[in-house]
This record gives sequence, C-alpha cells and structure tokens, in this order.
Amino acid sequence: MTVPADLTNRQIRLAARPFGLPKPGDWELVTEAVTEPEDGRLLVEVSHISLDPAMRGWMNDVRSYIPPVRIGEVMRAGAIGRVLASRHRDFAVGEHVYGEFGVQEYAVSDGRGVRRVDPDAAPLPTYLGTLGITGLTAYFGLLDIGDPQPGQTVLVSGAAGAVGSVVGQIAKLKGCRTVGIAGGAEKCRLLVEEFGFDAAVDYKAEDLKDALRKHCPDGVDVYFDNVGGDILDAALARLARGARVVICGAISQYNNTEPTPGPSNYLSLLVNRASMTGMVVFDYADRYAVAAAEMAGWLADGRLRSREDVVEGDVTAFPETLLRLFSGANVGKLVLRIR
Amino acid sequence: MTVPADLTNRQIRLAARPFGLPKPGDWELVTEAVTEPEDGRLLVEVSHISLDPAMRGWMNDVRSYIPPVRIGEVMRAGAIGRVLASRHRDFAVGEHVYGEFGVQEYAVSDGRGVRRVDPDAAPLPTYLGTLGITGLTAYFGLLDIGDPQPGQTVLVSGAAGAVGSVVGQIAKLKGCRTVGIAGGAEKCRLLVEEFGFDAAVDYKAEDLKDALRKHCPDGVDVYFDNVGGDILDAALARLARGARVVICGAISQYNNTEPTPGPSNYLSLLVNRASMTGMVVFDYADRYAVAAAEMAGWLADGRLRSREDVVEGDVTAFPETLLRLFSGANVGKLVLRIR
Repeated sequence: MTVPADLTNRQIRLAARPFGLPKPGDWELVTEAVTEPEDGRLLVEVSHISLDPAMRGWMNDVRSYIPPVRIGEVMRAGAIGRVLASRHRDFAVGEHVYGEFGVQEYAVSDGRGVRRVDPDAAPLPTYLGTLGITGLTAYFGLLDIGDPQPGQTVLVSGAAGAVGSVVGQIAKLKGCRTVGIAGGAEKCRLLVEEFGFDAAVDYKAEDLKDALRKHCPDGVDVYFDNVGGDILDAALARLARGARVVICGAISQYNNTEPTPGPSNYLSLLVNRASMTGMVVFDYADRYAVAAAEMAGWLADGRLRSREDVVEGDVTAFPETLLRLFSGANVGKLVLRIR
Repeated sequence: MTVPADLTNRQIRLAARPFGLPKPGDWELVTEAVTEPEDGRLLVEVSHISLDPAMRGWMNDVRSYIPPVRIGEVMRAGAIGRVLASRHRDFAVGEHVYGEFGVQEYAVSDGRGVRRVDPDAAPLPTYLGTLGITGLTAYFGLLDIGDPQPGQTVLVSGAAGAVGSVVGQIAKLKGCRTVGIAGGAEKCRLLVEEFGFDAAVDYKAEDLKDALRKHCPDGVDVYFDNVGGDILDAALARLARGARVVICGAISQYNNTEPTPGPSNYLSLLVNRASMTGMVVFDYADRYAVAAAEMAGWLADGRLRSREDVVEGDVTAFPETLLRLFSGANVGKLVLRIR
C-alpha cells in the first residue's frame, strides 16, 4: 500500500513543563506530512490512545524509572492502531498493533515494543486496559509484590480506576476479602456491584479511619496504593502483622506544586513488621505474554470484568481528557478514541 | 543462701506518660523489701542496666510491638545480674544472667527469657550490647532484611550508636562498602578509625544530599535506618535500584510532641523498585543463640569491636542517663552500672 500524498499527522507535543495541573499552554499541536516508512519500519494509523496517571510524571524533568518527555517531543503514550504501510518483516498491512506510538494520528515505528492484538478476541480499548500495561500492572503488583493469600484482606485505593479495579478482581479470584477505596457513591456502588469488592469506602464521605476499622477488622494484609497522601497514611495505620504495601502510584501527589509530607504513619511498618515496595511494570516484560494470556482466560470466562471509559475525539482532545484522571471524573481505563 | 532480712530494693517506676522528653516527674523512686524467691523463681542482684532508644516508645500508651509499660510499673529494661537466691532448677546462686529485669536493684524472675552469660568470655556490658539484643538487632536487621551483597553500598544512620556501629562492621565483614552517618566530628572519626566504616558523614556539619552523592556514587543498596526524619528522607533520595531500607527505629522522632511529616521521598521506592521493611528483633528469638555465637566468634578474633558507654551510678541515675540517648551524647551501647 502506498501512503496518500496529502496525508497529514497531527501531534500533541510537550511545549513546557507543567507547574501543577497541565495547562493548555503546556501543549503544542504540530502537523506534519506522513511519508512512506523506511526499510525495517512500519507506519501505524493510531485509533486508541491510552491515558495514564503516570503521564504526569513523565512530564517532569526529574530522574525516574524512564527519561522524561523532552520539550518539543511528541507526548509519550501507549496506543493501538492499524498498520497502514509496512517495510518491517514482522508486521503486515491491516494488522492491529499495540505500541508506544505517542499522542498523534500516525506513528512510524521500528517494531520495538510493538505487539499484535486481536480485535476479534477483545474490544480494542481492552488491550490498553485489562489486557494491556494497566492490567499487567495490577497483575504483577498484586501477585508478585502483594503476595495475597486466601482469606487475607486486600485493600486497594483508586479502586474504581483502571489498575485498582483489576487488582480488586484478581484478589477476589485468589480468595481474598477485598476492600476498595474510591471517591463518591456511584464509584463505590460500582466497586461492589460490578467489580465484586466485598466492601467499598467513599473517602469523600466517610471517615477513613473508622471505615477501615469497620471493613478491615483483622487489619490489612495487602495494601495496593495508587494514590498516596492521606489515604496511604490511613492504610498504614491499619496494617496487619507482616503486611505488604505495594506502591504503584500516587495520583493525589502528581500535580502538587510544593513538596508534600510523606506518610507520617510509616513506623507502622516497624510495629507490624511490614514492607512497602515500589513496582514498575516494565520490569516484568519477559512475563507479559503469560500474564496476559491468563487474564484473557479470566475475561473470557467472565471472572474478570474490564471497564473502559472511551472518550471520542481527535488528538486535540488529549490535554483536556487527561485532566479527567486527576479530577476523579473517570471510572476504569481512560482511552481517547481518535477515529 | 538466705536473703538478708534488711535487704531493700530501689526501683524506678513509670509515674506518668511523658509529653516529649521524659521529665523527672515522669518517674517515681520506690523502695521495697527483698524477700526469698518462691518455688520456681530466682532472685537476681542487678548490676548492669541496658538503656535503649526503644524505651521511649514503651512509655507511650499506644499499640506497638509490645504492650506499653503501665503507670506504676517498674520501668522495663534488659539487664545483667548475679543470681542471689534460686528456687529455679535451671539457675544456681552466683551465676551471671541476662533478663528483662527492669530498672531496679533486685529482680524476681520465673526464668522466662533469662539466659546465662559468661563473664570470662566477654565483659558483662557486652552482653547488653554486641552480644545482646542490640547486636542481634543489627545482625538480623542487616542480614535478614537488608540482604547485603559483596561490593554493595550499605548506609547506616545512628552509626556511632549501639546498633549502628555493629551494622557497619557486619556489613564490612560481608564485603560491602560502608558509609555511616553520625553527629559531630568525634563520632565520625570513631566510625572510620574504630568501626572501620569506609566513609563517615557528619549530619550536623555537612549537607546530607551532597555528602551522600559523594560517598555513595552508585547509590545506596542497603539503608539501615535508626533515626527517621530528614536523614531517612535524604537516604531515600539516594537509593540504588532494588535497594532495601531497613526500618529499625526512628530516634529523631520518639520525643516529638506533635505528628511529624513522614518521608516525603518515599516515591523513590517506586522509581527504584526498592523496599522499606520494619523489623523487630524479638521475631528472631529462635535464632538468637546461633547469631550470638557467630558474633562472639567475630569479637574473639578481633573482626568485630564492641564499644560500651558505661555510666556508673545507682538506679536513681537512670532518668538522667536515658536522656543521653536523645541528646546524641553517647557512643556505642549505653549501660548504667549500678554496682
């Protein structure tokens, strides 16, 4: 296939390092011509873009688990698309693929980190959520670091979010009692009715300490933290002996404009001989395939439910859509569908 | 042997729960008659009392790894003494023993937790320090939780203290690069010259961040924390990938009168896939004997140096002596010798 001569690629590039919540001026819309891929490369027509809390961290110029997005660079994002042209031996025109294609309409790739996805086996957005990096984060963070045992209590924050909702369901599959924390009555209803949590705590309406005492009477054996801040502190105060705290993220902290206090209850780790461990899903890349296959099986037999919050728009909708993650507006995996 | 009829026992009892640093009025001196031990018990004439930062925690009415000392109760303390009278089958008059005898001149015990010590093998204060709970804390905290590997960098805070000075030496024995943090030039000199640390950081005189960058150029693989606060935060910022943080204590926090911020750099655990784990030495009781024997061997062949700071006095000197731990006045194991 030949790429049409007049095809253009709209991209969202990082224009400035945000201070606090990203503002419109932190982004730049750039339009480029699309050209035939060179030898060894493929051209992808992007259809679905993943929106993740971690993106906010990638925008800061600090040492982290991956380099920051440079000023003037296309914003980094996982995405799904269709191969439009290929001079790469592993990918054929028309195939659907996942890759780190960025916030743009067309991406050229050398194939590294690109995986084929099957649109007949699951809806495309699911490959960004439960069957993608998000689901794998839940899987490895919970099972490898949290090490939940049947009958134990697993507490999850950001429980209505993309990662949290999967963590709760996997914990339930493993025979645990699951308690989710989310903001608002509607999210809490979903936790119990859709994701099967044994109990839900609305941190906006309830006293956290009282609620955790009530719902985790024997303490918390595994705490999976997506949010940090006061919720992490309240969970630390409720740890059971030998508890494992999984630090997956800290969405409540990502847009802070000044240094924020850490978890003042960290000495609960000592009192309870507990551990707090950070995880980055990329470390488990050699086991992605096995884990994704297991989760696909759970999805197929209905033991795991995937929920995506798909926003329809074009790439120019990205900056505003991203903010939904930080206002608590979305449930499940936030995806921008651009065609 | 019969107990002399007019023998009295002076005791330091907890009179009130301290707010901040313990004040004289938080203690009460009580004098009781000493009587013959009942069947199954032994009477110990206490000679050396262990002073430990953890004592401050035992004085608070909060849930912790052991119950608080009750108001009116003899202050809990590990101690060494000589058996003065025995109706216990395992202990004979004249033997030297370690036990949780409390801050008093004479103690009656049912033998639980009491161990014989050999005054010919090591000085008695050493059985409260390197060959006692203090040394065991260093041993299990470093080796079991820190898991140091040859060539790795081990950073220790409170490094001139009873636990820290042993941690540094064991890490060195295991082939690690050791960096100690202490307050003042004299302590730092001791770290290098007496305890064999590769480098010492004077937190009172140096910029911690700069000093850690200089002395831990490849990051910190194991951080053994005795102090908490700003030093913990600085260490977190310098972790190497996969680092282990051992939370042994937080002496900088024990006398705080208001809630204090936790380690704001805790997200370094995520960036570096690191863990932070609390330890309580009592969990390793079934391995005390093996560990103490190994450390006695290291002491005997000169590979481990034990330093005790022995204060001469009587039990009434206890309240004031305890404060030396929190003012940074002592080096090594603080012991009150009462006869």
